[in-house]
Amino acid sequence: MSMQKSLQKILKMIKERDTNLQEFFQNLHPSDFAEIVEDLSDEQKADLFELLSDEEAAMVIQEMEDIEQVDLFQLLSRKRASAILKEMSTDDAADLLAELPEDEAKELLTLIDEDAEDIRGLLKYRKDSAGGIMATEFISFPENMTVEETIRRLREIAPEAETVYYVYVVDEEARLIGVLSLRELIVSPDGTRLSEIMRKNVVHVAVDLDQEEVARLVSKYDLLAVPVVDDDQRLLGIVTVDDILDVLEEEVTEDIYRRVGVAELESVDLVGASVSSLLRRRLPWLLITLVGGLIVGSVIQAYEEALMAVAALVFFIPVIMDMGGNVATQSSTVFVRGVATGEIERSEMWGYFFREIRVALIMGVVCGVTASLAAGMWQADPILGAVVGIAMFSTVTFAAIIGTLVPLILSRMGVDPAYASGPLVTSIKDATGLLIYFSIAVHLMADRF
Amino acid sequence: MSMQKSLQKILKMIKERDTNLQEFFQNLHPSDFAEIVEDLSDEQKADLFELLSDEEAAMVIQEMEDIEQVDLFQLLSRKRASAILKEMSTDDAADLLAELPEDEAKELLTLIDEDAEDIRGLLKYRKDSAGGIMATEFISFPENMTVEETIRRLREIAPEAETVYYVYVVDEEARLIGVLSLRELIVSPDGTRLSEIMRKNVVHVAVDLDQEEVARLVSKYDLLAVPVVDDDQRLLGIVTVDDILDVLEEEVTEDIYRRVGVAELESVDLVGASVSSLLRRRLPWLLITLVGGLIVGSVIQAYEEALMAVAALVFFIPVIMDMGGNVATQSSTVFVRGVATGEIERSEMWGYFFREIRVALIMGVVCGVTASLAAGMWQADPILGAVVGIAMFSTVTFAAIIGTLVPLILSRMGVDPAYASGPLVTSIKDATGLLIYFSIAVHLMADRF
Repeated sequence: MSMQKSLQKILKMIKERDTNLQEFFQNLHPSDFAEIVEDLSDEQKADLFELLSDEEAAMVIQEMEDIEQVDLFQLLSRKRASAILKEMSTDDAADLLAELPEDEAKELLTLIDEDAEDIRGLLKYRKDSAGGIMATEFISFPENMTVEETIRRLREIAPEAETVYYVYVVDEEARLIGVLSLRELIVSPDGTRLSEIMRKNVVHVAVDLDQEEVARLVSKYDLLAVPVVDDDQRLLGIVTVDDILDVLEEEVTEDIYRRVGVAELESVDLVGASVSSLLRRRLPWLLITLVGGLIVGSVIQAYEEALMAVAALVFFIPVIMDMGGNVATQSSTVFVRGVATGEIERSEMWGYFFREIRVALIMGVVCGVTASLAAGMWQADPILGAVVGIAMFSTVTFAAIIGTLVPLILSRMGVDPAYASGPLVTSIKDATGLLIYFSIAVHLMADRF
Repeated sequence: MSMQKSLQKILKMIKERDTNLQEFFQNLHPSDFAEIVEDLSDEQKADLFELLSDEEAAMVIQEMEDIEQVDLFQLLSRKRASAILKEMSTDDAADLLAELPEDEAKELLTLIDEDAEDIRGLLKYRKDSAGGIMATEFISFPENMTVEETIRRLREIAPEAETVYYVYVVDEEARLIGVLSLRELIVSPDGTRLSEIMRKNVVHVAVDLDQEEVARLVSKYDLLAVPVVDDDQRLLGIVTVDDILDVLEEEVTEDIYRRVGVAELESVDLVGASVSSLLRRRLPWLLITLVGGLIVGSVIQAYEEALMAVAALVFFIPVIMDMGGNVATQSSTVFVRGVATGEIERSEMWGYFFREIRVALIMGVVCGVTASLAAGMWQADPILGAVVGIAMFSTVTFAAIIGTLVPLILSRMGVDPAYASGPLVTSIKDATGLLIYFSIAVHLMADRF
């Protein structure tokens, strides 16, 4: 069924107050349903959610964008909202409550009974830590339980749990001591005790670990979920791989935005954001660039005499700036990405840097010779050709080295190397490139001034 | 156990030809083991793999980087290599064979018996399609089987299957008609038939679908695996979420590299790559930038007279170029990323564009006024201040519009919008920015020339 058809059908159901949505849900994934809901008017949304059971509503809301969730919750009565929250998984419920106005969130929490403690617990953790993205719906059993008992218990409680793809084994103090996949459980003989078949070396994360590190572990070890523990190794929750996919997307976006100097834009709804909230995030860097550009201009001013004598020197300012810019961007981007994906390990950084110098020298020679010939012929001035060529060689080589060295040093210092291609660095590189260019000109063309 | 200690222990085991690696494997994840192996010498690697069973070797090799896998396979006898291949999952085996020299791959395939057909089948598909990343180890049962029979069968065959987190239901023609999670199976009464509890609306992908689209679906629907079907809906394989994590990383890297004009670098081993292979990928764009930069220079030459009359005009060339560049990069990066993550939908693109124009106009005014005051005061020349200010306003506004419009049009045309921030576009934008600047200068300062 196409989205368009689904939308029409939903509109018809709203109109006729058709409460038989069962069949509809069978044919439409909650995620698609959520997309359709996001396009409805407030009134239509309110009408539609009256037709849904609390459980159905929870399934749909969990798939909606954060901002849309908050908007929708404003349309519901407190009683209904808390009933739906109860049906959501604790991590999604906590995320939603964190976005709501504080007093509303507090009031809703008092209306929820059984999971309220868990949700309140989750709200304590930093949003981008393991605790902030974990759910408390996990399954754990004592080590002396048998496979048969475990499967029987699973059948009773499974509908509650976020995922039963792993069964965790804990000691009397609720400390994590082992893990079993559902598959390992199913293929083991009935009478076996969990302690005999569990894997003891459980990959786990501390509750305050950064979400990017959590994602790295899940990806490295190909896990479907990773357990989260406190300082005493007590099992607090799990982070599932579907949440990891979201984390990865978020972290990549953050990196990309950082690299172009649009800070914190990842927390904004791109389409719905106000003009002023966008300006606040973009203007600061632009003004820094502006100041930087003026400083670069003052470098040129220092060589005004040379420029007046040989006007053609001006024509090559753009090509020197562009080449320096592109080479530095290539170098820093490849290095930063290589470090982010783990392709360039800490121990390999210096080796990488020295190979980059060799690459830079050859690129410098090729671009220098090309620029020299082009400039010399265009202006029919071999000395000018030589000036441009040498400047091009120096700029390209220098830009590649700086483009690698700055993020290398930042990452060694524990600073996110994504900042290394920001507007500030651009200006420094331009100033250096032009300084090299004009110094060479002054040396080789001194007789003309 | 730290990696360092593990390494020492492995070296000791190699020396003493200690074949008792069982306990060792219990405490070290194959992924960590693989990392240690990658740091060994060829001789140590060969010695170590003699101590491992075929199954252990396969587990470790699957976790190694592609290039390391190929290197290792060169150290093994054909017989040993084929024995290990047999123990690998079909998708990993096919990927490895695709990297080996063709005749070696063919010979190895003849030495594998049971899975050879499956692997040969996988080798046909495009590397970045659903077929290219799927595994053939999936589990499917006929719809009239009961829950009890299914669980019994699962216990017999599970160790073979890549993942049993989903059980697929097929008709007599092997066509996919339903799906069950292991969890749904376990919580259902013994006598229930699969047809009664299966979900019929199975999210699935065609075998030739691009891997990026496959990833998008898995992420959207929070799947652990997605079934791959042929034109007749026959089930061919599954793509698991751990492979999707790798796909996402690969696609993001490809996008990032495209944006800075380093083509196809994602298929290269960053640390091990030769200088010449890097040059081949980076130089073409640099030379295009060089030509572009010279063309921008010729724009300046056209205004040589103006420059000679008012030398200070030269000082503001860098700031005009830098600002145009940064604004365009911000605009295109945010738009391209928004489209990639699905935050900006097709239907919202024009709305986004018109809001961007409003943002651009305000940024233009702020930067224009600032630049005008700075330039006017620095050079004690209010007219020059006005020229720089108007040029800055025009450049910033124009850059933001072009930065959004070009990728918007590319993406509407079905071209990857990541190309929109390539070096070519940079030059066009610089030329336009300077053209605006000098035209305004000629108009407002005509009396000085």
